[in-house]
Amino acid sequence: MNKNIKLSVDTLGSETSLSEIILGLNESSLRNDNYSFYLFGHENSIKSELDKYSSLYKNSEIIDCEQEVLMSDKPAEVIKQKTESSMAKAIQSVVNGTSDSLLSCGNTGALMALSLLYVKTIDEIKRPAIASIWPNLKSESIILDLGANTKNDARYLLDNAILGSSLASILFKIENPSVGLLNVGVEENKGNEIVQAASETLKKLSDESIINFYGYVEGNDISIGRTNVVVTDGFTGNVALKTAEGTAKMIQTYLNNGFKSSVVSKLGYLFSSLALKSVNERLDPRIHNCGILIGLNSPVIKCHGSSEHMGISYAADIIYSLVQNNVNEKIKRYISKTMKT
Amino acid sequence: MNKNIKLSVDTLGSETSLSEIILGLNESSLRNDNYSFYLFGHENSIKSELDKYSSLYKNSEIIDCEQEVLMSDKPAEVIKQKTESSMAKAIQSVVNGTSDSLLSCGNTGALMALSLLYVKTIDEIKRPAIASIWPNLKSESIILDLGANTKNDARYLLDNAILGSSLASILFKIENPSVGLLNVGVEENKGNEIVQAASETLKKLSDESIINFYGYVEGNDISIGRTNVVVTDGFTGNVALKTAEGTAKMIQTYLNNGFKSSVVSKLGYLFSSLALKSVNERLDPRIHNCGILIGLNSPVIKCHGSSEHMGISYAADIIYSLVQNNVNEKIKRYISKTMKT
Repeated sequence: MNKNIKLSVDTLGSETSLSEIILGLNESSLRNDNYSFYLFGHENSIKSELDKYSSLYKNSEIIDCEQEVLMSDKPAEVIKQKTESSMAKAIQSVVNGTSDSLLSCGNTGALMALSLLYVKTIDEIKRPAIASIWPNLKSESIILDLGANTKNDARYLLDNAILGSSLASILFKIENPSVGLLNVGVEENKGNEIVQAASETLKKLSDESIINFYGYVEGNDISIGRTNVVVTDGFTGNVALKTAEGTAKMIQTYLNNGFKSSVVSKLGYLFSSLALKSVNERLDPRIHNCGILIGLNSPVIKCHGSSEHMGISYAADIIYSLVQNNVNEKIKRYISKTMKT
Repeated sequence: MNKNIKLSVDTLGSETSLSEIILGLNESSLRNDNYSFYLFGHENSIKSELDKYSSLYKNSEIIDCEQEVLMSDKPAEVIKQKTESSMAKAIQSVVNGTSDSLLSCGNTGALMALSLLYVKTIDEIKRPAIASIWPNLKSESIILDLGANTKNDARYLLDNAILGSSLASILFKIENPSVGLLNVGVEENKGNEIVQAASETLKKLSDESIINFYGYVEGNDISIGRTNVVVTDGFTGNVALKTAEGTAKMIQTYLNNGFKSSVVSKLGYLFSSLALKSVNERLDPRIHNCGILIGLNSPVIKCHGSSEHMGISYAADIIYSLVQNNVNEKIKRYISKTMKT
């Protein structure tokens, strides 16, 4: 039997509507048993949305908050001045053990700063990473870091390999997820000193069967699905993610314009909708646009600032699975094994 | 009247067939007057291909070379041992002033190493960069560095801004191309110390109207076409380029699979071919897959190892335009202006 999982949800501070958040949570609660929610935000509004879903209503508690973290707020100011905000209170509920994890669509910088300050990192993990699930030609892979750290050293990359392996083993249900280290080529002498040093350490951990290190991978290997996990620094990862999103959008725009350009291709649009549907299902940013803050004492999930219900339910499913399968215990086991070598 | 432009072409060392190379050069020579070629490779084979194109034949000279740089050759070994190769001889022809520039489909590392050693960089440019032309929703932009330098400092980024501005002003025929610095966000405090230092210097140069610095751009701004030039370090740029290529390929595969999946969508494929054609024309890697080695005393162009004729002719057009418009004089003017501030 599954254990009870409690999720704190920050419902303010983004363009995501409350109705999409509640609908998404309801969808996830129907798929995952023993899942309950602490909803931080405007009590009356939340109550009237919750009224639509009887079972969710029973499994939810509302914590009324007036104060809201805005997208334009600076993290340092949020820490000082917005201590009564829905985000800060939701974080506190994780810190004091009321709930297991937190979901927010709000200000990423503030969420990151509050999480670091209060939830804190797991011992031996220097900084948390932002991980995401990318679709590829085979299935999906975990990519990290996508921007939590813009500084870079071999230690961060090693931490990311541990965090990514833990996520992939739970989310993809595989024993020894393969880990690739993102580089500009696959030969040993490629890249800079930092990736080369990280590669050396990862090779040793691979020899000891602690991490299933594949070796270097290149940017195009992400979509090919060469490895279950792709490890990189937060600067490169963030640029790669946004470049891929931009490319997908550009192709979609070209396609739409092409379809508009003649009657024949308008017919094409009609007939090819099935093919386009398959592309959209695989790449749909409304679903895939969430980042997992991992390496903290409790995982935190950040949804896109203008999410739809399927994005919320997808994120709530992920966090349920991570907590249900003790992701942090898995991370700690990886750490203790790497410390021994 | 246009001046005579002489291009050395290394015809060996890649999977690109000689017939595609010669056809591509012929296409470019028909579009660009006073364009002549030194063809390095197997004399008899080149001669029999050239026989097909009478005007190209008249404007070409063949330099017989037996030795070939292989894709698997290490740059250091090429420098020592392959001094009689078509690549090395073609480079020498640029160094001794016989020709203005070099085109090769061969080993990138070897081409880079030989160019650095013999063609050398322009004074004040520390290392050459690899630049490429990316399609975007508005038109095209120049992105650099795509992997010439995997080390990074503010100076390299500044050099790349100068090199990119020079390329964009000639290739896009614009007076003051806008320059974006790739970062993980657009706010001042984003990114690492290196991009922040580069941004400070670029702002000063922008205040003096030397470089048209837009500010930070993010990965998705590349496809949007936010700026004419996007400046980044060789590690990030290489990963971004390959990630974008991988994403485009993945979407194309999804589309093809979708079209295959039912009779209705097969019909869709038929009717939507116009729309797909427009995507392919804009993104066609057979055309866009060339890198400009810029910052050297003569520009060098590297085509993909398995190019088709349109890729070769596109690259030959680019190099013609750069030499015809004195790209290196433009770079030197930028440098002398920046030195004064």
